[in-house]
Amino acid sequence: MIFDELAPSRANRLINHGPVVLISCRDGDRTNIMTAAWAMPASHTPPMLAVAIGPSRFTHDLIINSNEFVVNVPGADLLDAVWYCGTKHGHELDKFAECNLSAQNGKEVAAPLIGEAIGAIECRLSSHPTAGDHTIMVGEVVAAWAKAELFETRLLVEKSAAQTLHHLGGPHFCRPGAVLAKK
Amino acid sequence: MIFDELAPSRANRLINHGPVVLISCRDGDRTNIMTAAWAMPASHTPPMLAVAIGPSRFTHDLIINSNEFVVNVPGADLLDAVWYCGTKHGHELDKFAECNLSAQNGKEVAAPLIGEAIGAIECRLSSHPTAGDHTIMVGEVVAAWAKAELFETRLLVEKSAAQTLHHLGGPHFCRPGAVLAKK
Repeated sequence: MIFDELAPSRANRLINHGPVVLISCRDGDRTNIMTAAWAMPASHTPPMLAVAIGPSRFTHDLIINSNEFVVNVPGADLLDAVWYCGTKHGHELDKFAECNLSAQNGKEVAAPLIGEAIGAIECRLSSHPTAGDHTIMVGEVVAAWAKAELFETRLLVEKSAAQTLHHLGGPHFCRPGAVLAKK
Repeated sequence: MIFDELAPSRANRLINHGPVVLISCRDGDRTNIMTAAWAMPASHTPPMLAVAIGPSRFTHDLIINSNEFVVNVPGADLLDAVWYCGTKHGHELDKFAECNLSAQNGKEVAAPLIGEAIGAIECRLSSHPTAGDHTIMVGEVVAAWAKAELFETRLLVEKSAAQTLHHLGGPHFCRPGAVLAKK
């Protein structure tokens, strides 16, 4: 065999390094932010995305109850906030205040956008199938935002401020590197 | 507003740049490979992952019929194969031959692994919920493989041969760049 065997529990680290996102949500007067490394686009028409969230997360029930959430895309400068929002339970914390993040009003959902992000995607919950020990939150994109200097028809990762964080495992992340174009 | 508005149909390009994967599958004597940019881990226990695949893809029905698939993780050296397998319909093509890829036998599934990849994850289909115009194939990891020099407890993206491809949109991809560790 050309490969070496991995424990199945390690397999996900082969595909773990999509861009880390910060999920913000609000249900009534309860607001939270959590870090998610497991997110992907899911549909073109209508535009949809999917985020895997564990049922024990405070954010899990806020999304189920409010039927909406925001996917914020942080740059590498927000590593400390990404770590904090990924390791602290939000039930009794104001993570916007703790992380010095500014809540911005969106257009279609009540959940706040994170002003320091590269961009933010407002989503309405479409379905929430279970996958093992996580729930896949499938959201329809109802509005989307980015900083124009960081996103044209694609994310301009050549610019330092547009460099997303990609989780490799444990405390390790990487930034985007060289851009290549298929000819 | 601190952000500029995007068309909702553009929103997914903010989170599009997880590692591109090559999905291989086999149903009876029909084998195929397709490129997918929309994949993510989905569960720790049991280990599961999710890949969004359009119903018009040849691979879609091969997976539904065979109940299994392999997620292969290509390095940037496989850009031509990634492009080919993402733009050609596999119904009448042998993509292994066309792309000079070597089929390797796995342990738990009949679908072949791609020997030139950094690693490969054998999956049994667990569920396949619909999200808009795509199907989310949720697979349970039944075996996993990687090249030991490229993967320890995480992918060693510092090494050129372990650099995955991340789709930014259109013909543009990036490689992983600098690694950072949260202290």
